[in-house]
Amino acid sequence: MALICIRTIIIVKKVVESMQKDRIRQGRLSDDRSEDVISYLSSMDADHWIADADLLVDMAHLLMLRRQGIIDEEPARILMALLLDMQEQGMPAQVFDDRYEDVHAGKEAYLIEKAGIDHGGRLHMGRSRNDEVATCIRLRLRDEMIAGMDALIRLRSVLIRVASEHTGTVMPGFTHLQHAQPTTLAHHLLAHEQAFSRDCGRFRDAYTRTNRCPLGSAAFASTGYPVDREYAADLLGFDGVVLNTMDAVSARDFALEVIAGCSISMLNASRVCEEVVIWSSSFVKFVNLADAHTSTSSIMPQKKNPDTAEVMRAKAGTVTGALAAAMMIIKGLPMSYNRDLQELTPHLWRAVSECRKSAALLADMLSKAEFNRERMEVEAGAEFSTATELADMLVREHGIPFRTAHNIVGRGVRSGRLDIESLEEAGQEMAGISLRSQGLTSEKVSAALDVRRGIAMRGATGGPAAAAVEQMLSVCRADLDNDREWLDIMKKGRTEAITHLHSEARRLVQ
Amino acid sequence: MALICIRTIIIVKKVVESMQKDRIRQGRLSDDRSEDVISYLSSMDADHWIADADLLVDMAHLLMLRRQGIIDEEPARILMALLLDMQEQGMPAQVFDDRYEDVHAGKEAYLIEKAGIDHGGRLHMGRSRNDEVATCIRLRLRDEMIAGMDALIRLRSVLIRVASEHTGTVMPGFTHLQHAQPTTLAHHLLAHEQAFSRDCGRFRDAYTRTNRCPLGSAAFASTGYPVDREYAADLLGFDGVVLNTMDAVSARDFALEVIAGCSISMLNASRVCEEVVIWSSSFVKFVNLADAHTSTSSIMPQKKNPDTAEVMRAKAGTVTGALAAAMMIIKGLPMSYNRDLQELTPHLWRAVSECRKSAALLADMLSKAEFNRERMEVEAGAEFSTATELADMLVREHGIPFRTAHNIVGRGVRSGRLDIESLEEAGQEMAGISLRSQGLTSEKVSAALDVRRGIAMRGATGGPAAAAVEQMLSVCRADLDNDREWLDIMKKGRTEAITHLHSEARRLVQ
Amino acid sequence: MALICIRTIIIVKKVVESMQKDRIRQGRLSDDRSEDVISYLSSMDADHWIADADLLVDMAHLLMLRRQGIIDEEPARILMALLLDMQEQGMPAQVFDDRYEDVHAGKEAYLIEKAGIDHGGRLHMGRSRNDEVATCIRLRLRDEMIAGMDALIRLRSVLIRVASEHTGTVMPGFTHLQHAQPTTLAHHLLAHEQAFSRDCGRFRDAYTRTNRCPLGSAAFASTGYPVDREYAADLLGFDGVVLNTMDAVSARDFALEVIAGCSISMLNASRVCEEVVIWSSSFVKFVNLADAHTSTSSIMPQKKNPDTAEVMRAKAGTVTGALAAAMMIIKGLPMSYNRDLQELTPHLWRAVSECRKSAALLADMLSKAEFNRERMEVEAGAEFSTATELADMLVREHGIPFRTAHNIVGRGVRSGRLDIESLEEAGQEMAGISLRSQGLTSEKVSAALDVRRGIAMRGATGGPAAAAVEQMLSVCRADLDNDREWLDIMKKGRTEAITHLHSEARRLVQ
Amino acid sequence: MALICIRTIIIVKKVVESMQKDRIRQGRLSDDRSEDVISYLSSMDADHWIADADLLVDMAHLLMLRRQGIIDEEPARILMALLLDMQEQGMPAQVFDDRYEDVHAGKEAYLIEKAGIDHGGRLHMGRSRNDEVATCIRLRLRDEMIAGMDALIRLRSVLIRVASEHTGTVMPGFTHLQHAQPTTLAHHLLAHEQAFSRDCGRFRDAYTRTNRCPLGSAAFASTGYPVDREYAADLLGFDGVVLNTMDAVSARDFALEVIAGCSISMLNASRVCEEVVIWSSSFVKFVNLADAHTSTSSIMPQKKNPDTAEVMRAKAGTVTGALAAAMMIIKGLPMSYNRDLQELTPHLWRAVSECRKSAALLADMLSKAEFNRERMEVEAGAEFSTATELADMLVREHGIPFRTAHNIVGRGVRSGRLDIESLEEAGQEMAGISLRSQGLTSEKVSAALDVRRGIAMRGATGGPAAAAVEQMLSVCRADLDNDREWLDIMKKGRTEAITHLHSEARRLVQ
Repeated sequence: MALICIRTIIIVKKVVESMQKDRIRQGRLSDDRSEDVISYLSSMDADHWIADADLLVDMAHLLMLRRQGIIDEEPARILMALLLDMQEQGMPAQVFDDRYEDVHAGKEAYLIEKAGIDHGGRLHMGRSRNDEVATCIRLRLRDEMIAGMDALIRLRSVLIRVASEHTGTVMPGFTHLQHAQPTTLAHHLLAHEQAFSRDCGRFRDAYTRTNRCPLGSAAFASTGYPVDREYAADLLGFDGVVLNTMDAVSARDFALEVIAGCSISMLNASRVCEEVVIWSSSFVKFVNLADAHTSTSSIMPQKKNPDTAEVMRAKAGTVTGALAAAMMIIKGLPMSYNRDLQELTPHLWRAVSECRKSAALLADMLSKAEFNRERMEVEAGAEFSTATELADMLVREHGIPFRTAHNIVGRGVRSGRLDIESLEEAGQEMAGISLRSQGLTSEKVSAALDVRRGIAMRGATGGPAAAAVEQMLSVCRADLDNDREWLDIMKKGRTEAITHLHSEARRLVQ
Repeated sequence: MALICIRTIIIVKKVVESMQKDRIRQGRLSDDRSEDVISYLSSMDADHWIADADLLVDMAHLLMLRRQGIIDEEPARILMALLLDMQEQGMPAQVFDDRYEDVHAGKEAYLIEKAGIDHGGRLHMGRSRNDEVATCIRLRLRDEMIAGMDALIRLRSVLIRVASEHTGTVMPGFTHLQHAQPTTLAHHLLAHEQAFSRDCGRFRDAYTRTNRCPLGSAAFASTGYPVDREYAADLLGFDGVVLNTMDAVSARDFALEVIAGCSISMLNASRVCEEVVIWSSSFVKFVNLADAHTSTSSIMPQKKNPDTAEVMRAKAGTVTGALAAAMMIIKGLPMSYNRDLQELTPHLWRAVSECRKSAALLADMLSKAEFNRERMEVEAGAEFSTATELADMLVREHGIPFRTAHNIVGRGVRSGRLDIESLEEAGQEMAGISLRSQGLTSEKVSAALDVRRGIAMRGATGGPAAAAVEQMLSVCRADLDNDREWLDIMKKGRTEAITHLHSEARRLVQ
Repeated sequence: MALICIRTIIIVKKVVESMQKDRIRQGRLSDDRSEDVISYLSSMDADHWIADADLLVDMAHLLMLRRQGIIDEEPARILMALLLDMQEQGMPAQVFDDRYEDVHAGKEAYLIEKAGIDHGGRLHMGRSRNDEVATCIRLRLRDEMIAGMDALIRLRSVLIRVASEHTGTVMPGFTHLQHAQPTTLAHHLLAHEQAFSRDCGRFRDAYTRTNRCPLGSAAFASTGYPVDREYAADLLGFDGVVLNTMDAVSARDFALEVIAGCSISMLNASRVCEEVVIWSSSFVKFVNLADAHTSTSSIMPQKKNPDTAEVMRAKAGTVTGALAAAMMIIKGLPMSYNRDLQELTPHLWRAVSECRKSAALLADMLSKAEFNRERMEVEAGAEFSTATELADMLVREHGIPFRTAHNIVGRGVRSGRLDIESLEEAGQEMAGISLRSQGLTSEKVSAALDVRRGIAMRGATGGPAAAAVEQMLSVCRADLDNDREWLDIMKKGRTEAITHLHSEARRLVQ
Repeated sequence: MALICIRTIIIVKKVVESMQKDRIRQGRLSDDRSEDVISYLSSMDADHWIADADLLVDMAHLLMLRRQGIIDEEPARILMALLLDMQEQGMPAQVFDDRYEDVHAGKEAYLIEKAGIDHGGRLHMGRSRNDEVATCIRLRLRDEMIAGMDALIRLRSVLIRVASEHTGTVMPGFTHLQHAQPTTLAHHLLAHEQAFSRDCGRFRDAYTRTNRCPLGSAAFASTGYPVDREYAADLLGFDGVVLNTMDAVSARDFALEVIAGCSISMLNASRVCEEVVIWSSSFVKFVNLADAHTSTSSIMPQKKNPDTAEVMRAKAGTVTGALAAAMMIIKGLPMSYNRDLQELTPHLWRAVSECRKSAALLADMLSKAEFNRERMEVEAGAEFSTATELADMLVREHGIPFRTAHNIVGRGVRSGRLDIESLEEAGQEMAGISLRSQGLTSEKVSAALDVRRGIAMRGATGGPAAAAVEQMLSVCRADLDNDREWLDIMKKGRTEAITHLHSEARRLVQ
């Protein structure tokens, strides 16, 4: 008896050592690996992201094993107690020891050390690291997506609030970075809001494809144990299982979709940032950023640089680079699990965290920025920006065909001024008509060139006229509320599931 | 009178010439452009994609102008007659003349030539090429997406059909391209089916963001004319307008989303193709492709190469390259329209057409491929692929902890054979136990190693056991039917709208 | 005899038909292919790029076959006559018939039709399409690179010329798009010139890796015929053979390198274009583009948009997208030839042609642009751009530590003005010193803030002072001459080789 | 005096605090920044890469300042002593405090704290962080490139060595992953060696564009101090200065070029890895990897997975993703320095370090792999891989046109066997000739199909015949030696410069 006991101790030690040194390898593979190989293959860095999720997965798996009678009560209780301990105390550092191939191996070694091989070695029944890691990634990603949508919702609410304060702030709208036609700051900001609103929509759609559970797929062929995949999925707050078990371990299109969503959102942000950079330049001075979002130079003492906007613009590169990386990694991989997939995961984390941080910071930056109404008003009518309205007036009130009116006004601009004289001349030259004799007067020209009058006329749905903007604001607010409600439901569902999981886990231990 | 007439003729000629030579430029800009500049800036190549859509947009816009009283009845009738003519006869070649900047300019010049400047020059009231082209792109893209989903649905139905014929075809499943555990061809093919099913889901989601109408946004600030954007949107079968008019002309995130969806779908296809290449190699011989999808060598007469699969695998590069291009083009563009956006569109067409063609061809290739049941069966049990089941049996029937059982079997494999002798030895060495004395027999080992028995045990949801696969097939079929129904509704809505548009157009002419 | 003759005719017809219908396939593969498959696999579109090169390759191969006695004199003469014919008359259209898999098959079918199978069927001895196409690509790419470098050299010479006219044109230099310190337009333009100079360097380096000959590698294992690879390489003007025959057919890193070089060059161009867009905006007005490089709006008659610069900026996306595509295509391809490689080639042609056209057009645009000296001068000293010089003066003449001086001047700027009063106050506050009592005077402050004086002081190598710029111009001109000379040598070598090849070809026919 | 002293202390404290809290900002900017902004903008993570380089830059800059009389002897001595101290003792942790914007600010604060503001604040004269960081990046990158080339040289030497041991190891060569023609392992491995050889060439070329010194460019306009840029460049072992000072701080094309080189090299490695994965699969079994480079499964005890090769294949995605990111970051940036550039640098470090580690590990993996000569020999002649030789023999010895011979043999293959009977039949069918009556015998057919005989005939330059391979080995070895020598010269130059810099630094202190 004592002999057996000592023997067991020796064997336990051997197993744990083997997991540290050789990782799950001992039975099959000989020889030691160099530090270079170990660090090259290790996913430990990225595993910090999923360590907490992994504990939840362990608990759910264990509850399922117990419920299905796959594991006996005693080892189940002992293992669950250790898992709850880890959750309360935090993961012990040794779990992240670089000598383990990954956090899963590190945790299993820890459990074996604490519970003995006879109990500690039973948690991995009916699963594989292939389904385990896929479940962890989806679990953590779910949280990241919720946080990301929270940030986007905050950004949209800032845009809506600032827009609502600037429905009367006229400014030049641009095409080709040239003064084009007058609009309002509200109209302009809501254009960006709509883009971020669609970003939210994309994340919502991706969430439904992400929030499904691979657990129980084992290596890819499921398992001979009588597992209940639906029960485990339910415990973890998933909307259901990933149906096909081979698909469950080998698919990463959900990750590609999320990184693509992040990329598009960062590109939308890069457009705002470009405008922030241009608008805060001393040529334009439409916006004055809070000092907190700028920096000065180590050499030029007068500088106030829009660094936050520049770094954010650049992070569009970082996130789309993550997408390029992840896509290439997936290309041409045969079924089912290949180790290549491990290299994909850090790109996912980089994408979602940069995207979330950027949205939050952009909200902050815009909410604290001061927009310079005077500068905007001055520029609103500059550079013949109301010429379109003048041409339209010629069409409406003088029956001139649009293309002709366009050419007449264009010729006027070329002469350097738009007034009754230049228009009369242009009309003669371009169309052989006398505008004056058709009743065009200096007053009519001036009225047509008036900035605020032109904006007020643009009352079509989604245009810059005050009423149209107010209607747009209503729609934007309603959409935002809808997204916020949806997100709250998701959060609630997730929280309730995890609470339930904990209480089931504790019930097992009692 | 005659004099005026001649004058008008001269002016018309001048306008048309000006549009050919100088494009809409005449009023504002002087001097000639070199052929190099013209061809560099021209979008004519890509405009063939949207020429038909542009006619529909013209009709809807014209009906709206008329209904709102913006255009008089006579010019409206004359213009509509010309538009209907073009639709029936096909676009005249001159419309695509390279000297025009784009098809919109080409068409306007044609209308002016035919209807005279006084009528022909009135169609462009209340709109700009900025909203016009955005509307055309969405209109055409809608059709492309429907065609793409059709192809994906056909691909999925082929996968489901072939899978249903192979629920009993055992084969080795792979991880790391190594024999891992036995599974069935049905299980394997349905893993791919699920990926393409999600691709369809992504396109459905993207469709709702795509199928909205920018028309009436004009340059970006809407227009002073009393346009009815909702009416035009309705005529064209859109689900509604793109709300903000600045967003409407400058946003291309819908395009990025579609290209991203195509990229993911092509990457899913690349994984199938990789398997087709490997499976048709003479080492594996799991599949025999129809000659139609292969080629031989110009020098090696014995070759039968899986060229279609190789080209398709490579096209994943082409489509993701289109995504990379489109994303970089968008990066850092300030509001609202910039000419950069023109360069994005060809990448969109390349992505959707390659994706559609690939799905269709992959369906064809898989539907005609012969799978070699004998080769698959031979390999199914090779390379210790049933070792996991053996370890599981040791756990289940002999109460050995999983990690211990795993190590014992692993050591057995290392010895080169899995039988009662090697296992007994490994048990002693790895865990200090005698399996024989615990009741392990040669028969039990054989049973555990039996391929079909192992598969039959894997009856968890989504696993390879026959019943599980049958259940999976039901779900797959139901999802496919759901997607097909949805798509039919979309097609019907689109067709009815366009039919209605035509009848309204013809009613105007009568 | 007659019978044999008829039989031969029938067989020839069969072979040609078979090449049209079944392509080189007849012996090995049965059944017909759908149009979809044929067009999916066909490289005909891209083959127009290499058709002329292919004729040269045929001639060189044929001369080599003859010289080595592999082919008899008669068939050699007949084939060469046909090849020379094609070159003089242009390729017959049937060669590009879509029913052929590629131009090589099309040309062989044509030769067989004209010369009979007994002669026409002998050209492909000792080679394969694998080495043939690789040779064609390198041959054509060589020409494209030379043309691209020509364009870059022209662009650099424009930059140098314009710079030399503006050594005295002061302007503000920017960091973070903020006025930073004064500089000159010459200094600014030469910064871009240096980037394009390095682009040339990269193409030179890539040229040496490109200009090597794969011919004679056949499928990858060379051939049992006694070919002389060096002789063929020499005839085609290559610098030598690609040594390893497997490498010769499967490597495309030379193409990736060239596309990467094009990408970097386009990114350099995108930076110039961004500046052109900003500088031509009405806020800045530093540059007035020639009308030829701009366009107006279809709706806003006053617009003059920098479309060429915008499209060029976007083409950076197109070219880097080609790189992304090509890289993904290569990823994970085993040796040796795989059909995936065919899909890479169009990306190469797109990259080199867009790059060449952009460089040429950018040269044109910059050479015709008018720079507005007055606006630049006005802005040169604005926004405290000379503050650094002021801080440096405090260090140099008053012994104040640099960081302290920097903080004093920064505080002055924050107060809104830089004069003796604000500086005195800032000195007290930031460093507890009285600058006035240390001898600072109003005159000294003014002198330090003088734009031209500040520039004149910046005489370090590569700085904006007139002498430094003159020295820089000399270096730039010398480097340009060096590149031009090198390029002339390359062109000459190429031309001489091709002329020699033609004369040898004609000598054979005589 | 005492008062002044206390005052100075207070001010020093204020400056250092300000650099910690507000970073160089104090003079110009007010208010505090949130932790989020600080961490978003901080480059500290990446700055660990350049901290050591930064010390060297400080030393060289200081020596130059002293030599030019810009700084007095005392502060110079004190500063240099501190710098030398830091180098010997290692950088103090506080320098990397996250509250500093970057390592440059951290180090300056440390110097001010230790030497007092009056001395510590003088190091930054005549430079800016813009040129400082650009110099640091090039300095560190130089080392990384040398280490990377070292690893590539080792990889090539392994390939050459293993190839030299396998000149007689016959194996099937593949096209389209199908058995194509016999070759030898030596021939195959040397194809890869040539690709890595070109990678070295690309790095050599890039090195000459990298190893130039931006120092003295200051913010971009150089400086009013009489700096000697050439002297500083020389001290740091650069080949010269980056000529134009605006170019010097804003150009990152050298970084793009290096990342592109790394990307191409990783793609080359991915092709080797793909082969390692396929060759170690149980279908092929051409190679047996050392256990150190494989792993087993956590669930399937029999597995031996080629994880190292899979992860390396995936890292091609990571590195090309870094390229995509860096390219997008650069796109459209106007002159000169923009903060976006900071975000580029981590992608550079990721690319070079992954590339270096991969080359080293691949060398290790290949050097320890066992190639299975028996399996290779068995497969060498399988699948009609010698059919080409048979067709060629029909051409050479029976005067049949190549295309005819190709079709005859292809038809034979289709019949399932290649012998005198099947060929006779095929000759009749395809060309109406009797091969038998032309003298074809069973012996001749057998001889033509003999694997080793076929290889021996392939003696053209670069082919698989033993003599050709030996010649190739000589060339490869010579090229390798050449690269090694070049690299030694670079290393020596670098080491001597740094040694000289140290001795000058110490001389100043004495």
